[in-house]
Amino acid sequence: MNYGTITKVLGNLLIVEAGLMVPSLLVALYYNQSDKRAFLISIVITSIVGFIMSKSFENKKGIKAKEGLAIVAFGWILISFFGSLPFVFSGSISSWIDAFFETVSGFTTTGATIVDNVEILPKGILFWRSFTHWIGGMGILVFTIAILPNLGVGGFQIFKVESPGPSPDRIVPKVKNTAKILYTTYFIMTILEIILLLFGGMTLYDAIVHTFGTVGTGGFAIKNESIGAYNSTYIHLVIGVFMILSGINFSLYYDIYKGKGKEAIKNEELRLYLGIIFVSVILIALNINKNIYHNIGLSFRDSFFQVGSIITTTGYATADFNQWPTFSKIILFSLMFIGGCAGSTGGGIKNIRILVLLKLIKREITKIFHPRAIIPIKTNDKVLPNETVAGITSFFILYILVFILGTIIISLEGIDFESSAGAVAATLGNIGPGIGLVGPTQTYSQFSQWGKLLLSLFMLLGRLELFTIIALFAPSTWKKEILSKNA
Amino acid sequence: MNYGTITKVLGNLLIVEAGLMVPSLLVALYYNQSDKRAFLISIVITSIVGFIMSKSFENKKGIKAKEGLAIVAFGWILISFFGSLPFVFSGSISSWIDAFFETVSGFTTTGATIVDNVEILPKGILFWRSFTHWIGGMGILVFTIAILPNLGVGGFQIFKVESPGPSPDRIVPKVKNTAKILYTTYFIMTILEIILLLFGGMTLYDAIVHTFGTVGTGGFAIKNESIGAYNSTYIHLVIGVFMILSGINFSLYYDIYKGKGKEAIKNEELRLYLGIIFVSVILIALNINKNIYHNIGLSFRDSFFQVGSIITTTGYATADFNQWPTFSKIILFSLMFIGGCAGSTGGGIKNIRILVLLKLIKREITKIFHPRAIIPIKTNDKVLPNETVAGITSFFILYILVFILGTIIISLEGIDFESSAGAVAATLGNIGPGIGLVGPTQTYSQFSQWGKLLLSLFMLLGRLELFTIIALFAPSTWKKEILSKNA
Repeated sequence: MNYGTITKVLGNLLIVEAGLMVPSLLVALYYNQSDKRAFLISIVITSIVGFIMSKSFENKKGIKAKEGLAIVAFGWILISFFGSLPFVFSGSISSWIDAFFETVSGFTTTGATIVDNVEILPKGILFWRSFTHWIGGMGILVFTIAILPNLGVGGFQIFKVESPGPSPDRIVPKVKNTAKILYTTYFIMTILEIILLLFGGMTLYDAIVHTFGTVGTGGFAIKNESIGAYNSTYIHLVIGVFMILSGINFSLYYDIYKGKGKEAIKNEELRLYLGIIFVSVILIALNINKNIYHNIGLSFRDSFFQVGSIITTTGYATADFNQWPTFSKIILFSLMFIGGCAGSTGGGIKNIRILVLLKLIKREITKIFHPRAIIPIKTNDKVLPNETVAGITSFFILYILVFILGTIIISLEGIDFESSAGAVAATLGNIGPGIGLVGPTQTYSQFSQWGKLLLSLFMLLGRLELFTIIALFAPSTWKKEILSKNA
Repeated sequence: MNYGTITKVLGNLLIVEAGLMVPSLLVALYYNQSDKRAFLISIVITSIVGFIMSKSFENKKGIKAKEGLAIVAFGWILISFFGSLPFVFSGSISSWIDAFFETVSGFTTTGATIVDNVEILPKGILFWRSFTHWIGGMGILVFTIAILPNLGVGGFQIFKVESPGPSPDRIVPKVKNTAKILYTTYFIMTILEIILLLFGGMTLYDAIVHTFGTVGTGGFAIKNESIGAYNSTYIHLVIGVFMILSGINFSLYYDIYKGKGKEAIKNEELRLYLGIIFVSVILIALNINKNIYHNIGLSFRDSFFQVGSIITTTGYATADFNQWPTFSKIILFSLMFIGGCAGSTGGGIKNIRILVLLKLIKREITKIFHPRAIIPIKTNDKVLPNETVAGITSFFILYILVFILGTIIISLEGIDFESSAGAVAATLGNIGPGIGLVGPTQTYSQFSQWGKLLLSLFMLLGRLELFTIIALFAPSTWKKEILSKNA
């Protein structure tokens, strides 16, 4: 392990984080609320620690896969710890573990909260809380690579680990430039949504904060009733559409910008994603209309918002879907596992993986009749290497395994079957609200301290796509180069 | 499609089924109950239909994979239909759909019942009900191949489709002889358990009927309280041990008989299976002892029985595990998916597949650090071909997919999340009792007619391992030879 370089990169990361706290300080100063001192102290501490770490001695230049993993895993834990300082120092959240949970939830764009009454928190704190979604959505390390001069690290290693989805494409040859393109798209979407929300009569502050939660597919709200507090179909529609847009692979927007719109629309992952949304919206709308709403327009409005919110793993709510019939609830619960597209800010398993898994089933059925046929798996007319397919199936198996083990362990909190499964699916998939006791009208404050730590781990596991975190616990990570030949 | 041969084989199958009803008729005659007429009529109808079909003209000799699938799928539907005749004719079950459900549940060794008060049924009917488990456990078609002279069909095609687990080994080169060895083992286990139960003070009738349910890993009981009605630790222990023995690959017993006991004990699937049982028994015993029992001996006794019953997908109960803490319930629920070993009478995904899936995860973690390493997947020191691994992962993905879609559809019955998931897991895995509203003290009589038909489909899907049934719906099954090149 190249500890010197790792420490140096993590130090730079903290300096960037301290810088990212400045806008929240400005907000606190503008509203002149009690939280301004908390931000000042947090910025000072974070930047001093960062500065000291960044002066660490590099024993050699460059990093390998192992170090890339360590940087991302430790980096996310570190920024979550320092990012929780403002919550504690301002007294908004008194327990360290609660504040850590809330910050992990923010950076991983989960949006699960332990705050029972969010409306009493100061404006700067609420701004920071939602801003962590925005930072975490695209990946703070990629951001660090993009803005800082030569860190001496192989950016692609980190980009690969931090970007959601299997094997991200480099849009342009240099990772730094790819990151810049992604962030530019991200910025444009952010500005666009803020403007559209202002048109809907939202205040600038509300518009900015909700946009962070939308484009980052986070879901932290500043009202106890989430988006349901805004009784405006226009606002529901704008946020609903932008959630879905944020769940699409950002490189497709670049394709459209480059005039390759036709190809972008033919993208198989996009079609699957939109297809699932389409079918789910209709099924749920009909189901809730028949059983509860008895108003087809309202049924479609609420079905659309909730489906968009859950499949993109945002977690905003305009209705308490926990009260909906089991049929609708189980569809939403299933969407928690599907998640957004690769290369978006959404969590979950990702549509591209679901697509490949469905093709594997199709192939196996064909093979019953043609046992000797060689059928490659293709996406968008490109043959996937066997290693990629194996990686995707292993990811799926591991995801299910972690979900099951997580549900078993969290049930020791004394909660029921549905709530246990709901809490783990909603944290692992980076959604936020789940079903049962963690439905959209409830919070995670009911869990014990160790329960919150465990759920924080699930959020990190989900955001960093399992293997990053699990590899840290693997003995071979800490052993010297021994090639284990057999699985 | 070679319809002539298919019809002929299915006709022979019905003749065999009619013969298999004779013991139940004798039981009915012995107890001189109302059901004797029902068996007589059923035997006459079944054998006449079978005889007519068996005279069908064979357009050509030999069958292909496609025909093998069709024989097994239609064969199971057919024997379930004719097997339900005694229930209807005796008036034990008045509705045709209910009787069909009960018979499918019997043959697939599920043990899910729609009979609310089983103790009022006549002895012959209860005997037949449990005997269907015994027949279905080893596969009735394999039995047919083993006892009938040359049917003109490729026995291995059918053996492959009907035997639980991926790619069964032919113990000896000829399928017919393999089937005979398996049935001999099955017979010996049956006799052994009957004797041991007689020692425990059971009547001969009770001992035989419960043995059918145990060695077939079925689970139909003749008391409303299942095995819990027998307040004897000895009986719980005998049935518990025999359930676990019936979940082991039967070819291992042949290995032991052939003096290869050392190798049998080293079998990786066996070790995983016993390991999971061991860990689950301990975790659940500690959990129920702390929360309910406060008696460690009783806790271990009931934990052992319930774990053995669920993982082997038998479904007998000595305690209402639905009242246990969520932690224990979710472990049992997870065991429903694991199931028995390949080549046993148990259902579920099977331990050999779980083993391979775990090795895939392990390989992927190793690959993070050694991306270029070529790591083959091995079981019992033999490298598995890539096609076998792909088949196993596809099976797992499809199993999860069917489970999710099934849960969504069955929830339209208006039942809650836990009960929907429980009913589908318990039928698809061929267990019987699930969790929630289908717990061990409840029955499936609460479902609507179409709900029962759907659950019958899940039982068949589970017993015939998904692809057999799904392939029947695939358009390519009915098309002429067109090789579709891409998945």
